[in-house]
Amino acid sequence: MTKPFLHEDYLLTTEWARRLYFEHAAKQPIFDYHCHLPPDQIASNRQFTTLTEIWLGGDHYKWRALRAAGVPEDLITGNSSSDYEKFIAFARTVPQLVRNPLHHWSHLELRRYFGIDLLINEANAPKIWEAANARLQSPEMAVHGILTSNRVTVVCTTDDPADTLEHHLAITRSPLKTKVYPTFRPDKAMAVNSPAVFNPWCDLLSARSGVDVKNLAGLLEALDKRHAFFHSIGGRLSDHGMEALPDVECTEREAAAIFAQARSGVAATPDQFAKFTAFIMIYLGQLDAKRGWTKQLHLGALRNNNSRLLKRLGADAGVDSIGDFPQCRGLTRYLDTLDRTNQLPRIILYNLNPADNYAFATMVGNFQDGTIPGKLQFGSGWWFLDQREGMEWQINALSQLGLLSRFVGMLTDSRSFLSYVRHEYFRRLLCRMIGEDIEAGLIPADEAANAKLIRDICYDNAAAYFDLKAGNL
Amino acid sequence: MTKPFLHEDYLLTTEWARRLYFEHAAKQPIFDYHCHLPPDQIASNRQFTTLTEIWLGGDHYKWRALRAAGVPEDLITGNSSSDYEKFIAFARTVPQLVRNPLHHWSHLELRRYFGIDLLINEANAPKIWEAANARLQSPEMAVHGILTSNRVTVVCTTDDPADTLEHHLAITRSPLKTKVYPTFRPDKAMAVNSPAVFNPWCDLLSARSGVDVKNLAGLLEALDKRHAFFHSIGGRLSDHGMEALPDVECTEREAAAIFAQARSGVAATPDQFAKFTAFIMIYLGQLDAKRGWTKQLHLGALRNNNSRLLKRLGADAGVDSIGDFPQCRGLTRYLDTLDRTNQLPRIILYNLNPADNYAFATMVGNFQDGTIPGKLQFGSGWWFLDQREGMEWQINALSQLGLLSRFVGMLTDSRSFLSYVRHEYFRRLLCRMIGEDIEAGLIPADEAANAKLIRDICYDNAAAYFDLKAGNL
Amino acid sequence: MTKPFLHEDYLLTTEWARRLYFEHAAKQPIFDYHCHLPPDQIASNRQFTTLTEIWLGGDHYKWRALRAAGVPEDLITGNSSSDYEKFIAFARTVPQLVRNPLHHWSHLELRRYFGIDLLINEANAPKIWEAANARLQSPEMAVHGILTSNRVTVVCTTDDPADTLEHHLAITRSPLKTKVYPTFRPDKAMAVNSPAVFNPWCDLLSARSGVDVKNLAGLLEALDKRHAFFHSIGGRLSDHGMEALPDVECTEREAAAIFAQARSGVAATPDQFAKFTAFIMIYLGQLDAKRGWTKQLHLGALRNNNSRLLKRLGADAGVDSIGDFPQCRGLTRYLDTLDRTNQLPRIILYNLNPADNYAFATMVGNFQDGTIPGKLQFGSGWWFLDQREGMEWQINALSQLGLLSRFVGMLTDSRSFLSYVRHEYFRRLLCRMIGEDIEAGLIPADEAANAKLIRDICYDNAAAYFDLKAGNL
Repeated sequence: MTKPFLHEDYLLTTEWARRLYFEHAAKQPIFDYHCHLPPDQIASNRQFTTLTEIWLGGDHYKWRALRAAGVPEDLITGNSSSDYEKFIAFARTVPQLVRNPLHHWSHLELRRYFGIDLLINEANAPKIWEAANARLQSPEMAVHGILTSNRVTVVCTTDDPADTLEHHLAITRSPLKTKVYPTFRPDKAMAVNSPAVFNPWCDLLSARSGVDVKNLAGLLEALDKRHAFFHSIGGRLSDHGMEALPDVECTEREAAAIFAQARSGVAATPDQFAKFTAFIMIYLGQLDAKRGWTKQLHLGALRNNNSRLLKRLGADAGVDSIGDFPQCRGLTRYLDTLDRTNQLPRIILYNLNPADNYAFATMVGNFQDGTIPGKLQFGSGWWFLDQREGMEWQINALSQLGLLSRFVGMLTDSRSFLSYVRHEYFRRLLCRMIGEDIEAGLIPADEAANAKLIRDICYDNAAAYFDLKAGNL
Repeated sequence: MTKPFLHEDYLLTTEWARRLYFEHAAKQPIFDYHCHLPPDQIASNRQFTTLTEIWLGGDHYKWRALRAAGVPEDLITGNSSSDYEKFIAFARTVPQLVRNPLHHWSHLELRRYFGIDLLINEANAPKIWEAANARLQSPEMAVHGILTSNRVTVVCTTDDPADTLEHHLAITRSPLKTKVYPTFRPDKAMAVNSPAVFNPWCDLLSARSGVDVKNLAGLLEALDKRHAFFHSIGGRLSDHGMEALPDVECTEREAAAIFAQARSGVAATPDQFAKFTAFIMIYLGQLDAKRGWTKQLHLGALRNNNSRLLKRLGADAGVDSIGDFPQCRGLTRYLDTLDRTNQLPRIILYNLNPADNYAFATMVGNFQDGTIPGKLQFGSGWWFLDQREGMEWQINALSQLGLLSRFVGMLTDSRSFLSYVRHEYFRRLLCRMIGEDIEAGLIPADEAANAKLIRDICYDNAAAYFDLKAGNL
Repeated sequence: MTKPFLHEDYLLTTEWARRLYFEHAAKQPIFDYHCHLPPDQIASNRQFTTLTEIWLGGDHYKWRALRAAGVPEDLITGNSSSDYEKFIAFARTVPQLVRNPLHHWSHLELRRYFGIDLLINEANAPKIWEAANARLQSPEMAVHGILTSNRVTVVCTTDDPADTLEHHLAITRSPLKTKVYPTFRPDKAMAVNSPAVFNPWCDLLSARSGVDVKNLAGLLEALDKRHAFFHSIGGRLSDHGMEALPDVECTEREAAAIFAQARSGVAATPDQFAKFTAFIMIYLGQLDAKRGWTKQLHLGALRNNNSRLLKRLGADAGVDSIGDFPQCRGLTRYLDTLDRTNQLPRIILYNLNPADNYAFATMVGNFQDGTIPGKLQFGSGWWFLDQREGMEWQINALSQLGLLSRFVGMLTDSRSFLSYVRHEYFRRLLCRMIGEDIEAGLIPADEAANAKLIRDICYDNAAAYFDLKAGNL
């Protein structure tokens, strides 16, 4: 009774799960409201040349796995190894990834995108290389083809406020049916602890906004202008990546002084950085509330741990991990400050440390205000948690402590165009969990209600929650 | 093979589980050693008029769910909506609560108390309203009827030291067979950070105790007198709700100065508040040890997060959540300080953040002293953890790290007379876990031993552990 | 269909699990790379006289359980109770340990070592006592017999740098086939907060190393000499038990001043202690890197909570528990500091608080450098986590976030020669988890690959990872 590897019904342990998945979940399009896909590649409808390019090029999950398996850095990110050599190093490593999400994802990516059903290992590597590269030449494997065949109706990329959004403008003029929107990610607006980053960025922001960012008032005005510009081309989401919300207050006067100091080239102290962050985050929350946006908070990552690789490769190179920061006091201060003046926008809280799942899921419940169903969301399993047990934990925490039925569901959070299989994975897990509860008599066996539940979480909730027009796919 | 919703054997996955539940667990009475039931309603044998009154009136779990579903506050706690409108709003929301414990509890409450077997939704709402309200008119649905039919032999309410306990005295003169005892909850005795609360309370305590609470010595003497008064009418438990035990020492001289300052109207600083709390908590522990009581510590809640709703509705309005406080150093300091002088009473530690389950469960083991089996208890899943996965985690942590067999088991912690179904839920879960282990050969299949284990945890351990006489029911 | 207690296939829920366990896992020898076995007892090939001696003598897990069950201390660690009385007290307690790992371990220990298949309880106690004590007289139950029959090819004990290692030298001259190596555990080298411990130890270290430990340079040189001595007789591991790595920097000059102060009898403040610890730990990491060793970090225990029992019984008496310390910043600082100068040795991180599992498992991934497969290891479930759910959590965290296939697997961490059944337990759990995934189609059903995976984790990875010659058993 052993089932074949990733057989048609994998993860679908009950008849209910199978029916819910194939008749409902699998039929829903994809609403990818948060990712890191490169807008220029969408605009140019990039065609990839080799499997290494599209599959291993920017995927720091895979880099980490290769390093752990003892593969030298040159075969991972180096310049002296060929694409084929890198691919072989990966193929040799895959069998060692058993039980890691990469093991499932990699096989699913080959199957769903390339129609290649082989186990990934050294022996099969040449065949896979040849078949995949051949398939990459077809128009369906250019970026537009991928988005279309995966029925991705919305993509929200992640963008700096000083970005021209020229690629987004180009995309709107292309035949692509997928709607592509920018997300406002103003991490650098708080970088007063690093004048070498902050000052050139302020200068760029001045140029792009037409507002001289010479004092705090200028920064705030410029951010507002760029926020309005993002809004004008359809953007309705902001996003922030931080360790934790600071549990401090900051007056405008204090923030202005910290700003001036940083602009004069003197880095903010950690306390000043926390204060400035607190001040700017409140302001940005007010902007989102004003324009009816949704704010995403990605909390809990401890970044750039490995100085040597950071120097060699830059950020996002696979040397980030899960932190253990105090989260709750800063978070409640932030949400409450906005709520007190009725300026709390829709919020999605993403948590990286599963030990904090329950605290986050209950925090969300403190600020639901009856205006929008599921106004505050406990976001989907994120980054290291975007896998079998991480997703189950998030779904269970949300179920036990909030309203699973209002969940806006899965996103890709990916830098790769091959990550849409993560939606399949999430949907199967969801159907498995619901199916098992129905069979056990813990959820009423109401076909219509359960079908709606699944369809809502897979797509319809997101489509209703965000103020974004979806493509017709 | 799909089972009907909450069928007779729900949660009972094995033959062992079914036998243990129906032959043993279900037959045990209920020892409700911690709840927030209002003594005046017990004394007056309150008869409720509508389902909204008894079901939605004070239940902030349900309020949170309604807010999350987008129901306006007026339909939840407002004055301009009728009881029927509020009920309809809830009935409309219930189908959205799938997988939330409220979904099970609400249906079980209708079935077990009202004999109503309908799914709760908008269509069935009128029928439910009519049938439930009719049933509410019967004497069995007055408070005494409910306590009697649920075979609740003991109820311990939660009371301020300055309370007259007049309702408790009245109850002892009533025909109710359930024994009702007060629990000594002196939160306000530490409120030096809030003179507006602390000073009127000290004045009231003076009046009630006959001791002038004009200095620290007066406070301590008054607390002792009230503790003795609670003792005289049968009280044997104290209780405290706090974020964490402070990890500081405080001399009597320091405490006296902080007391005097607060009495003069100047609020304690956070450091002073921590010191004063530490001092008073040691004293209160000594009182409990002196009179052979059990002290309950409810740790880990982050309260009153939403200022707007707090102002509108007061405390306990559904805007509390799980905190992430450092717990261990303060806790070990507290327990060890009492233990060093052989003044450590029985202790039950309740933990709100499941991330701390293992730390709490092992902390308990440090201070078991061989005098009383299970003298220190890792308390039942509490508040947000009072559900399927929360209770399983607690039972597993206790099993792996301590002595499940000595567990004093479930309580309701409820403000509602309809919460006794939570005991059914807990007992089924417990029987399921034990049953699965027996079938797998991980627990010996010894009928008598397993029956005793179940009966002990469901009732007999609590009856032996607390120095409380139970009613004959 | 109820299975007998601990039947032949317990924990092996699938046909795959059974095959993998009996054909592969069970056939592997044991590589016990970390334990607290006493070298003198190995050297002298100790023969135990009573079951109490070998079973209850130094086992603080059992002591805790007895205290929780209400057994008086005298029957646990006292001098006025006989071995038989202590055994009876334990036998009477065992039935109360249902679902605690001690319940399984104790029964397995009796079965595998003594061939006694009885349930442990008061009724069976006399029979068990007689049979076990008789069996203890046989040469197979002397220490060498136990190590041989369990096919323990390597034992790494835990030793102070100032230890003469005379017993290790004696063991190498004995006929024992098991290779026994010392582990360098320099906890006292950081004890500047306790001059009463630090100064006699420094004097002893002077005597043993031939280097006058009169200043910091002397300490460092002496540690290096002892490290080299441990190396000369085959030692390749170091070990540290600490709450957390301190998140501070310390210059050599600062460390020298703190050293001088402690040597003059003045205890380091907590900040000084943290600094000194940081300094010494970096130095010790460099020693390990220089000689190709593996460093073990046991983090997260809160020790000696109960002053009364500590005073009566000393350390390691069952009054330690799980702490909730911030771990990540100190840990990343430590690993990165060593890595920056290419002096990061192999590292095994053991975590005591399961809430930190995910943070630890991802931390490991930041510093894999492609030189050695699995160079940084997320260590096996440790101490309180060395049980069914603790081991499952560790295996799942490692699987989802790293490379299970490179895991060096289980160790005993025990003070008792009867603990080798923990390997059986771990191996069954591992086979169960792999077997279930294979049957569900989540791991390819490749017989050879899965057999290799199991054999690697049970023995071959450890044999390849550590630079230790194994005995031929």
